[in-house]
Amino acid sequence: MSADTADIKPVKLGVVGLGRGFMLMLPTFLDDPRVELVGAATTSELKQQEFEKRFGYRAVSTTEELYADPNIEAVYIATPHEMHRDNAIEALASGKHVLVEKPMTIRVSDAAAIVESVEKYQREVIVGPSHSFDVPIVEAGKLIASGKYGRVGMIHAHYYTDFVFRPRRPEELDSAHGGGVVFNQGAHQVDMLLTLTGAMPVSVYGCVGNLDARRPCDGAYSALIEFDNGCIGSVTYSGYGHYDSDADQGWIGEMGALKPPNVYAVARKNLSQVKNEVTAKQSRGFVAGSHVGDVPKFHEHFGNIVISCEKADLRPTAKGIHVYSDDGYEFIPLPLEGSPRAEVVAELYALVRHGMSPVHSARRGYVNVALCEGIYESFRSKQRVEIRMSD
Amino acid sequence: MSADTADIKPVKLGVVGLGRGFMLMLPTFLDDPRVELVGAATTSELKQQEFEKRFGYRAVSTTEELYADPNIEAVYIATPHEMHRDNAIEALASGKHVLVEKPMTIRVSDAAAIVESVEKYQREVIVGPSHSFDVPIVEAGKLIASGKYGRVGMIHAHYYTDFVFRPRRPEELDSAHGGGVVFNQGAHQVDMLLTLTGAMPVSVYGCVGNLDARRPCDGAYSALIEFDNGCIGSVTYSGYGHYDSDADQGWIGEMGALKPPNVYAVARKNLSQVKNEVTAKQSRGFVAGSHVGDVPKFHEHFGNIVISCEKADLRPTAKGIHVYSDDGYEFIPLPLEGSPRAEVVAELYALVRHGMSPVHSARRGYVNVALCEGIYESFRSKQRVEIRMSD
Repeated sequence: MSADTADIKPVKLGVVGLGRGFMLMLPTFLDDPRVELVGAATTSELKQQEFEKRFGYRAVSTTEELYADPNIEAVYIATPHEMHRDNAIEALASGKHVLVEKPMTIRVSDAAAIVESVEKYQREVIVGPSHSFDVPIVEAGKLIASGKYGRVGMIHAHYYTDFVFRPRRPEELDSAHGGGVVFNQGAHQVDMLLTLTGAMPVSVYGCVGNLDARRPCDGAYSALIEFDNGCIGSVTYSGYGHYDSDADQGWIGEMGALKPPNVYAVARKNLSQVKNEVTAKQSRGFVAGSHVGDVPKFHEHFGNIVISCEKADLRPTAKGIHVYSDDGYEFIPLPLEGSPRAEVVAELYALVRHGMSPVHSARRGYVNVALCEGIYESFRSKQRVEIRMSD
Repeated sequence: MSADTADIKPVKLGVVGLGRGFMLMLPTFLDDPRVELVGAATTSELKQQEFEKRFGYRAVSTTEELYADPNIEAVYIATPHEMHRDNAIEALASGKHVLVEKPMTIRVSDAAAIVESVEKYQREVIVGPSHSFDVPIVEAGKLIASGKYGRVGMIHAHYYTDFVFRPRRPEELDSAHGGGVVFNQGAHQVDMLLTLTGAMPVSVYGCVGNLDARRPCDGAYSALIEFDNGCIGSVTYSGYGHYDSDADQGWIGEMGALKPPNVYAVARKNLSQVKNEVTAKQSRGFVAGSHVGDVPKFHEHFGNIVISCEKADLRPTAKGIHVYSDDGYEFIPLPLEGSPRAEVVAELYALVRHGMSPVHSARRGYVNVALCEGIYESFRSKQRVEIRMSD
């Protein structure tokens, strides 16, 4: 923080859902003076007790009770994807701003309903966190927008992870319920493209792969997206826990922490030793003794990205941006400063305290959902799918 | 060679076109006892003289004269792409087998005409060399075909090179004449997919990028290909001489030789110092003092490839194959043995001496051209293009 923290009036935030998503945001909430957790809603009595013990504020069973608290200025929704729509619209109707985990919804019609509610209730939605908040992505987007390197023509991103073999609730593997990698991981790649291109998508064509009959799930995809500035976006993802492309990031993991190099297929091995997968998943939520992993030393990242502009290729990584330009090669270092994910809190603070419209708005969330749904629709219909805003 | 070379009766080969393609095959022809160069056709008197001096056989001005030579059993066609069709059909009609550089043609209708001529004249066509002959690709294809790792679900390939900034004749930058990266480089990626999947393509959807107004040319593309075994192929390429993805191959270049690491954008720099680009291009052909580059120490390669099967990911490289399987990680080393591109000569020798049908046949060449043309057609029509054999 460059400003004196004494000037800061923290945003009073209520939390809906104390699962894995909340756990991954918790270090940021604890570390950042611009936000204070003042209430929570969860059906788990264990988590209610833990929350009250840790934060000294009440944790309730329903969103209705939580949203009735006039002390709460904004809510952070980290429930299963299918609940986002109702959780968010109810919050907006209660006069709260909303920070909601991606994907904003798992259906375009639900996304449109949230956009409508934003307009109706004059409250805003921020969709986040996601890797489009990552500093190297934001800074690469600024370099592109500066025009210094000419027009952006093609952006290619690929990432090979163990997503499919992390402990899951059954619906997390079922695309009908927003499971699988398109809605969960494609949402990241798509949002990075929105930041980098600074443009609106025109169309999407994609293929989805269910590669392992022993773990039925949409675990891989590849898609092509056209943008209205002529840029081509090409995204490929596989979450089957074989090849780990964090090797290309110097063994810096998605969350910005160093991974032990060449420790092969940990997620597969761990999962094979788990007796009850749902219990294993719950243990990654907000319960006593749970932890989120190693402390990040670098920015978060989401795999390999090559941005091709007229006069340079750019490769953002967890440590900075490689610039391969007409004039030569340079590396722009971007050391991690402040809390991880501080950018998410910054957008929330700017909205609540200064009335600034969010970048990761409901309308942008709508576009993201339209692209993810478009990948499926394209794969089913065997056609290029056009992307349009609802109005 | 494992067999005694005394048993070998070299294929008597005539060469059509003594340009860059021939130069890149020459070390193989000189080194491999299974082939002997016994004639050439070129319009350049300088090259005719050089050929006669080096090989002691006549070099003529026209294919008609060359093909009339009864001593010649097969011809190697390395002329500009647009001439392949006529050069090949005339050779087949003269009773010669044909080895033709990729792309076999630049129009599907021309490819169909060659397929017809193969049937009519009962002579065969081999399309090569191409990177689908590379030993790591062939061996990876065998691993997949063995079924050991289950079904192949997705193959992703990308390559960032300086193709656009190598010295070119004007038509090499004009896609109407088969220039640009789709026909010249896409042909490699597509053919590798044919070898790896062992399947027929069903459809293609692609985007083509002309990213640098100062060097107008189709210099980048990204495409998705569906195969009849359900495999998804995803290919991305950029030839704009900025980011060089040979970095990911331990600075082993496309031809299997080590490159000085981090020597940035040599091709761009060299080209900017060239006064007459056509002359610069010609100097890379078969003239006194010309050379092909450093001696390869490894197999050739064509960039980064990740093959996702049910039970393993495979990554073929210039040095071997990384296998990331359910059972663990292993690296299968594939040291370079014998001449580079010996596999091309092996297929030719097997055809001419033993009557074995070639793998890289005219029908396969047709499919390759259909996919490359399909990328353009898809980009123009904004539709998925179905791939069908002509008959």
